[in-house]
Amino acid sequence: MTLEMDIAALHRFVAQQFVQVKDDFVVEALAPGAITVAMDVGARHLRPGGTVSGPAMFALADVTAYLLILAHIGPKALAVTTNCSLDFMRKPAAGQPLLCEGRLLKLGKSLAVVDALIHSAGQDGAVARASLTYSLPK
Amino acid sequence: MTLEMDIAALHRFVAQQFVQVKDDFVVEALAPGAITVAMDVGARHLRPGGTVSGPAMFALADVTAYLLILAHIGPKALAVTTNCSLDFMRKPAAGQPLLCEGRLLKLGKSLAVVDALIHSAGQDGAVARASLTYSLPK
Amino acid sequence: MTLEMDIAALHRFVAQQFVQVKDDFVVEALAPGAITVAMDVGARHLRPGGTVSGPAMFALADVTAYLLILAHIGPKALAVTTNCSLDFMRKPAAGQPLLCEGRLLKLGKSLAVVDALIHSAGQDGAVARASLTYSLPK
Amino acid sequence: MTLEMDIAALHRFVAQQFVQVKDDFVVEALAPGAITVAMDVGARHLRPGGTVSGPAMFALADVTAYLLILAHIGPKALAVTTNCSLDFMRKPAAGQPLLCEGRLLKLGKSLAVVDALIHSAGQDGAVARASLTYSLPK
Repeated sequence: MTLEMDIAALHRFVAQQFVQVKDDFVVEALAPGAITVAMDVGARHLRPGGTVSGPAMFALADVTAYLLILAHIGPKALAVTTNCSLDFMRKPAAGQPLLCEGRLLKLGKSLAVVDALIHSAGQDGAVARASLTYSLPK
Repeated sequence: MTLEMDIAALHRFVAQQFVQVKDDFVVEALAPGAITVAMDVGARHLRPGGTVSGPAMFALADVTAYLLILAHIGPKALAVTTNCSLDFMRKPAAGQPLLCEGRLLKLGKSLAVVDALIHSAGQDGAVARASLTYSLPK
Repeated sequence: MTLEMDIAALHRFVAQQFVQVKDDFVVEALAPGAITVAMDVGARHLRPGGTVSGPAMFALADVTAYLLILAHIGPKALAVTTNCSLDFMRKPAAGQPLLCEGRLLKLGKSLAVVDALIHSAGQDGAVARASLTYSLPK
Repeated sequence: MTLEMDIAALHRFVAQQFVQVKDDFVVEALAPGAITVAMDVGARHLRPGGTVSGPAMFALADVTAYLLILAHIGPKALAVTTNCSLDFMRKPAAGQPLLCEGRLLKLGKSLAVVDALIHSAGQDGAVARASLTYSLPK
């Protein structure tokens, strides 16, 4: 696995293509087959009791998988999620950013598979686990 | 399976407990073991090309399962999602609301299982399929 | 959706291609988009306490999806499972065959999605729920 | 996480409780939170073309999760699988044993979550990925 884009290129791509979410996610680390993405947990992601909403965690896992795949195939906006399985395991720490570590398990001609672990900054034990399949454009 | 809440009671519960999303979802039908929830697709749910975002569809499936379970156990805010598996199958129709039909497959003492199909209004073929497990409060 | 194979053709295909399992499964009903497959629960599928093993239920869901897809695309042995999500919900009834009802939710050019409910004969409440994605040969 | 059973105790437990599968699986490594289980791929696990069947890979993932959980809670046969999600990514190498590495992501009072990667001995790239939830006896 070799990288086609670096962190700066991924950030430029998100700023151009996903204006609605461009301020929510920051790529913190990138290497062949692996990425770490941080999500700043703002008020709009919260549920009563201060916990982060499920959709916000889904969004983080999905963006992590997408950026990890793009980093390896180049900026092709047409890659689409076909499957996602999530386990929610612990309550996130209040007021802490979430960190998602993605691993690229398969990069085939038509499908890519990523798994991801989400942690609250400063807390042991993953908050959530996700696996995602993307269909790749020809 | 017998209902503990009706549609009006579910709407009141959402308005009190989930102020962030209270205007997004409307329960259209409710019967023992089955619910239909509509989501109005506003600009904040859209992605480039006019498609509905994955997180918005996850949110719809999750709310549908949650309200279906509450309708059967009463207003207990502590039920939490432990697992969700989603298949994204077709592009939603532009500008159309999404309709999610949930079925309560299991209502046990500690776990409930719901599956759901999401359609675009006026379009054949489901947009997405989801299954969700909730952990129930004692 | 139109059928390319009938029940007899499916049974002949299984007898030729899957000699190891040919006596385990019987297609009981077939219609566009829907199939019912029965599995006779023999001793080799059992676990202590008389319950059916998880792998046996996985096998039933997987064969159900495979035969439902083949019935619509014709006898192409190269369709392969890429994803399966299962919820195990109730203990099967001892000594009863299992019945699996599959629905073809999507039949695309490269992917097909099926969901399935497994019941014990004579028992209310599904034993298990499954969703499966198959990659289709070109 | 501390271990309640060692490899020898796990092997004795399987020999007593799961006579049907006792010769199929060998625990190769065990540490707090992690296990490696090998499955010898016999003829009964094969499909046409020499590939390992999906049910056999499901069985390996399920046994891996089960033994990893038991190693941490002691020999309680009543832990049951409630959910399993699998991605099948590559064809196993013909005639090679499969190795499954399990990680214990959560060990709660009522639920445990494990993820697992399955490799063919001597082959890069995982054959399959699985995540499993177990319901634990009180």
